[in-house]
Amino acid sequence: MTYRAPLDDFRLLLNHIVGFDSVSKTARFEDATTETVEAILSEAAKMCEEVLTPLNRNGDLDPAVLENGKVRSSNGFADGYKAIADGGWVAVSADPEFGGMGLPLTVTTAVNDMMVSSNMALHLNPLMTQGQIEALEHHACDELKALYLPKLVTGEWAGTMNLTEPQAGSDVGALSSKAEPNGDGTYAITGQKIFISWGDNDFTENVCHLVLARLPDGVAGTKGISLFLVPRNIPDADGKPGEANSLKVVSVEHKMGIHGSPTCVMSFEGARGWLVGSEHDGMRAMFTMMNNARLGVAVQGVGIAERAYQQALAYANERKQGRTAEGSIIGHADVRRMLASMKADTFAARAIALSVAVALDMANATGDAEWQARAAFLTPIAKAFGTDTGIEVANTGLQVHGGMGFIEETGAAQYVRDVRVTAIYEGTNGIQAMDLVGRKLMDGGEAAYKLLDEIEAFAEGARAIMPDLAEPVWQASENLRETTEALVAREVSDRFAVAVPFLRGFARVLGGYFHLAAAMAKPDGAEAKLAAFYIKRLLPEHLGLLAHAREGADDLMGISPDDLAV
Amino acid sequence: MTYRAPLDDFRLLLNHIVGFDSVSKTARFEDATTETVEAILSEAAKMCEEVLTPLNRNGDLDPAVLENGKVRSSNGFADGYKAIADGGWVAVSADPEFGGMGLPLTVTTAVNDMMVSSNMALHLNPLMTQGQIEALEHHACDELKALYLPKLVTGEWAGTMNLTEPQAGSDVGALSSKAEPNGDGTYAITGQKIFISWGDNDFTENVCHLVLARLPDGVAGTKGISLFLVPRNIPDADGKPGEANSLKVVSVEHKMGIHGSPTCVMSFEGARGWLVGSEHDGMRAMFTMMNNARLGVAVQGVGIAERAYQQALAYANERKQGRTAEGSIIGHADVRRMLASMKADTFAARAIALSVAVALDMANATGDAEWQARAAFLTPIAKAFGTDTGIEVANTGLQVHGGMGFIEETGAAQYVRDVRVTAIYEGTNGIQAMDLVGRKLMDGGEAAYKLLDEIEAFAEGARAIMPDLAEPVWQASENLRETTEALVAREVSDRFAVAVPFLRGFARVLGGYFHLAAAMAKPDGAEAKLAAFYIKRLLPEHLGLLAHAREGADDLMGISPDDLAV
Repeated sequence: MTYRAPLDDFRLLLNHIVGFDSVSKTARFEDATTETVEAILSEAAKMCEEVLTPLNRNGDLDPAVLENGKVRSSNGFADGYKAIADGGWVAVSADPEFGGMGLPLTVTTAVNDMMVSSNMALHLNPLMTQGQIEALEHHACDELKALYLPKLVTGEWAGTMNLTEPQAGSDVGALSSKAEPNGDGTYAITGQKIFISWGDNDFTENVCHLVLARLPDGVAGTKGISLFLVPRNIPDADGKPGEANSLKVVSVEHKMGIHGSPTCVMSFEGARGWLVGSEHDGMRAMFTMMNNARLGVAVQGVGIAERAYQQALAYANERKQGRTAEGSIIGHADVRRMLASMKADTFAARAIALSVAVALDMANATGDAEWQARAAFLTPIAKAFGTDTGIEVANTGLQVHGGMGFIEETGAAQYVRDVRVTAIYEGTNGIQAMDLVGRKLMDGGEAAYKLLDEIEAFAEGARAIMPDLAEPVWQASENLRETTEALVAREVSDRFAVAVPFLRGFARVLGGYFHLAAAMAKPDGAEAKLAAFYIKRLLPEHLGLLAHAREGADDLMGISPDDLAV
Repeated sequence: MTYRAPLDDFRLLLNHIVGFDSVSKTARFEDATTETVEAILSEAAKMCEEVLTPLNRNGDLDPAVLENGKVRSSNGFADGYKAIADGGWVAVSADPEFGGMGLPLTVTTAVNDMMVSSNMALHLNPLMTQGQIEALEHHACDELKALYLPKLVTGEWAGTMNLTEPQAGSDVGALSSKAEPNGDGTYAITGQKIFISWGDNDFTENVCHLVLARLPDGVAGTKGISLFLVPRNIPDADGKPGEANSLKVVSVEHKMGIHGSPTCVMSFEGARGWLVGSEHDGMRAMFTMMNNARLGVAVQGVGIAERAYQQALAYANERKQGRTAEGSIIGHADVRRMLASMKADTFAARAIALSVAVALDMANATGDAEWQARAAFLTPIAKAFGTDTGIEVANTGLQVHGGMGFIEETGAAQYVRDVRVTAIYEGTNGIQAMDLVGRKLMDGGEAAYKLLDEIEAFAEGARAIMPDLAEPVWQASENLRETTEALVAREVSDRFAVAVPFLRGFARVLGGYFHLAAAMAKPDGAEAKLAAFYIKRLLPEHLGLLAHAREGADDLMGISPDDLAV
């Protein structure tokens, strides 16, 4: 169960596919040259391969547990976390003013990808901190920034996100946690939160909770929600963690996977908190965290896909069964098909995730609204397709192992169990799809059509050189354009019925585009063969998905709950 | 976590969709009237709902373990097994000469479906016994039959299948277990077997192992393999379990799911065995077991899909989140889509499985080779599509639960973990697909074309009444016919590269046919609405699958192991 960071894939993707050169050319990111990025990714790769990977199984076998009200983390996780923090890998993109490296989010995304592959459960801790850093950078007052950001950036302190309550999951606006002004500028936070990833740990000095709660004059729904920073230990005059705050971990959930990541039920009992942003404006800050986290979760799917692929490939190269030219099961056509599918889909999902990161970096560097719209449009696609791909690839990886895959010692099953949650948290994949066909088509399809224009222009340019690959991509894009037009013409509520197949159809076409670009960049390489595999065998899935997406809502909603009864 | 047996679905399927009336009309099965079958299924349903269902979670939480060389089963499983045995549910179709009910396999299939839904891990025990009974009925000598069958049929003794060895999984012919004649008509069996479901238990008097091994003069490969019956306790002169045989359970695997079913490593150390069938003819008997077992495993997929669906439906009806007309999340279009997909696919998978059973019953009752060919053709489709559907539906069921789905207490995750193995054992789904495009197309496509003729004739008859549904089914069938022709025209080895998408495409079209039949039978019912959902939204998946299936093998095999390296 080793892991080798896919540095060649990152090199190809950044330099030839997702347009990272534009990022390097901006004034903001001029230091992020190809050489610098290469050096940084190599360094991160080393830490992931050598330190985090060997700890991954510990998280599964020795789950984080609650002991005397404190979380005890899995054996070795404290050392793993120290390596992440010491290397500066918690917050690669954080503002240098507060100790960050100020590197593009694209670099963070690639580093996260490798950390997920090597240890998803542990990496979820710094991933939460990354979201908190971004929320504080954008919305906190200067005092809070000065006090908290340096500690979070170094990883001395960890951050969490406290959104969900038992009756308020996807419907965040239904939350009932309360905030009362203490009269000294602080607030007393009271309520119960569930599904809090890394709600506590035993390796950082402090744990800082970002908590959504409602002030006494907050209206019902999302518009009455405010965001508070609630530290486990209240910083003293020297900024050191002092007095314990009135909050606790009530329990740690028994989950299907990521056992190394304690999922906590948190109780806030008049805990002292500090307002982040304006009163009643918590949702805006939450969306900052969520957008960051959605890309982070997309990459969890990609990272697990990569790891599951590598393990399945190693097994297929070693396992002898039946007569093949290669001497191992990799010689069987169906095993080859499974491995090629895994690799091709992982590539597509990674390309989409990195495209979001590039668009965000360009938006940050240039302030251009078009890049912002591109990032906003691609984010739900990256999240849903990335995580669905993680789930599918992990399952295929298990299948490659045959009977051994079902035996826990092999490790393939852990990936299946770990990655399953990624389709759920930070907005279920159904919610992502509703976001795509709802909010992200409110521009009348402008962002979508710009992407399709880009795809078709590229396919037209490639047509003379690789007609077999360029033509199907162009055709698929046209089909997608017509489907998008059909959706835009409908009421938003009618689009929801087909949101999921539309999102997946869009992702399939994007995958075709990125594979075509890879083939054009490396026409004589393995990339071109894999692109042909994807475009001829996997891309056709869009036909059924888009046919589904062109159906209306009435037929579906006409199937009543009674019709569904057994 | 209750379960309600889908008796209405069975009624519709048997009476209107899969042609069970033909079975009832045969002399062999003339007792299996509609009324009798209804009564039997109702009785089985009661046992499943009331006795087996409440024990299901015990199997997961209190796994079967090895204690002092003996398997200790999960809490309550002994009682559950007693209810199965006492009700006569072990072997509904066994020969009345040996105490069986002699009912059609179609009835067994429906009963198995319900037992799987209520407790897959426990039901795997009698499922193995069913396979053993069928193998002995067909291949054992009269003395073995007289001694063993009455005990197996009542469930007093249990049966197992010992095929796999560490180096001989899918490639059974590579096995190294040995059989030496003892000179008294018995044989000494020596070797290690792995992945033996219910290799031991603590609730039957005896456990009878069917073991594949090679005689001293057996040639290498599958043609040198013989089958032996090796009881844990050697029956004494009165047919009572006596002296312990030289065999033992070495260990019980730690698996992703079905924790209640002990998966054993077995060691045979000169154990006394009796030959079943002729020397070196073990593979033929094994195929009898395997064919039975493949249908049984298909139904494991269907049964778990049903259970996961019922739980997700109950959750969706109760869970409040966001504003909907229904007051619960079932009012959200995407939740409705998920539930409709689950129900529609479960129906399709169940119809395919029952069609196999009907074809086997007709073949048994009439000796007609055409029915035999139909059963043989449909079996790999039923197995692969049934289990893939089980996996997909269980995953969708988990998704309907949102964050709660990932928490083990909810139960949704258990279905995902339990059902995962069904795509692997009794021949991986890749092997099923290779069987379909290889052995099952060796007739030049005759069995396939007969099925397609039947589908198209039905669709033509339905066209005037339900053109919106009949036409897409007819078109899909034509597309499938062309794809089948393309495959038949190729070398068998070239078909393997696209075997999986071809099998799934075939299943999708069969599902369209059965849904169309349901709509025609119940034009004003929920069935017609669900059929429209399937045909318009899920059936189009065949477009991408069949496009994939029409691709050749060269492009795939041209992706070398080096091309796949990271």
